Amino acid sequence: MREFFADPQGTREQLLAATYRALRTHGYAELSLQTIGEEFPKSTSLIYHHYESKDELVLDCLDAMLDQLENSIANDTENPHAAILAFLEMVHAPPENPSYQFMRALTEMRGQASYDPVFAKRFDRADQVMQAQLTTTIEAGVQQGMFETHDPDQTAKHLYTLLTGAVVRRASTEMTDYLDMVQHTAETLLSTDFSTLCKSNQE
Amino acid sequence: MREFFADPQGTREQLLAATYRALRTHGYAELSLQTIGEEFPKSTSLIYHHYESKDELVLDCLDAMLDQLENSIANDTENPHAAILAFLEMVHAPPENPSYQFMRALTEMRGQASYDPVFAKRFDRADQVMQAQLTTTIEAGVQQGMFETHDPDQTAKHLYTLLTGAVVRRASTEMTDYLDMVQHTAETLLSTDFSTLCKSNQE
Repeated sequence: MREFFADPQGTREQLLAATYRALRTHGYAELSLQTIGEEFPKSTSLIYHHYESKDELVLDCLDAMLDQLENSIANDTENPHAAILAFLEMVHAPPENPSYQFMRALTEMRGQASYDPVFAKRFDRADQVMQAQLTTTIEAGVQQGMFETHDPDQTAKHLYTLLTGAVVRRASTEMTDYLDMVQHTAETLLSTDFSTLCKSNQE
Repeated sequence: MREFFADPQGTREQLLAATYRALRTHGYAELSLQTIGEEFPKSTSLIYHHYESKDELVLDCLDAMLDQLENSIANDTENPHAAILAFLEMVHAPPENPSYQFMRALTEMRGQASYDPVFAKRFDRADQVMQAQLTTTIEAGVQQGMFETHDPDQTAKHLYTLLTGAVVRRASTEMTDYLDMVQHTAETLLSTDFSTLCKSNQE
């Protein structure tokens, strides 16, 4: 999984990193300025100095995550198969893994977005950024002779919608029998064996 | 879309039908025994006589919907292409359509299920029923020479996960640029032109 807020600099970034960790651990509904404070290395009073509500802080955190996603496009074109692998990896995470916790928080906030336009706006941006980024990654892979798809844009839409479905199913059920299909579909769409690529990346 | 509680018989079914309609209109978080009462043709006091909380009523409603889904399998094997079309149709619904409202309520409850095992249990059953039903429908279509897929089980998993992603994206964003891909994928997986089938069904 992409690591958000890997090296937070300064109070604001540390606060957003704390929000991200608290969101993963507790989910959105159970989140409070207090639970965020428990993940924050500095005084909790600083939180109340900068933010009036948990929603304000969560939305700021989502915006910062989207900024980080947008800025990571360059990396994804340098190593397209590693990028696709990282994209697919999240959905296989076991329950104790931070990626699994992140899938649950994402699914809960998608639910929130279905009736709350302020959250819907973030998922609109997230989906646009992710689809565009996947398209760019796939195009780079085709140019480098790594992938064979003839339509990177449609392939990106397909993979992203399929992965969204798999994330939501992982978070809201205990079923996992569709995960092999997700991997197989990615391999068929890109005509590339990701298990082999996975090994060659590790070597 | 499949019509749930189309012809409710007796007080219990009328109450579950009212819950389903109220859920579509208000969503889960904003639902109350009072808003359900507004959709119920009989006295609201009857609701309090049968149920102690909205959750109890919502879960009973979800269970009844799953029962109806399970019992509708026979219909789906009589006319496989109509069944697949109905399955794909929901995701194209405009915002004023009951199917769109249903997608939003479903997405909100998936979010609820990501932290609530009682809801997760229902989505587990829903996903198992839907995947099994899709597989049966596709197998029937292959036997009738209508579909060409060699692996109905994988095709069902693919279509159901893709549609789950599309439902959640429709409910939580304003984007629609992936919808043609969903239709095209169904056609490719089943090697059948659904726009033609759609017309021939209407004739």
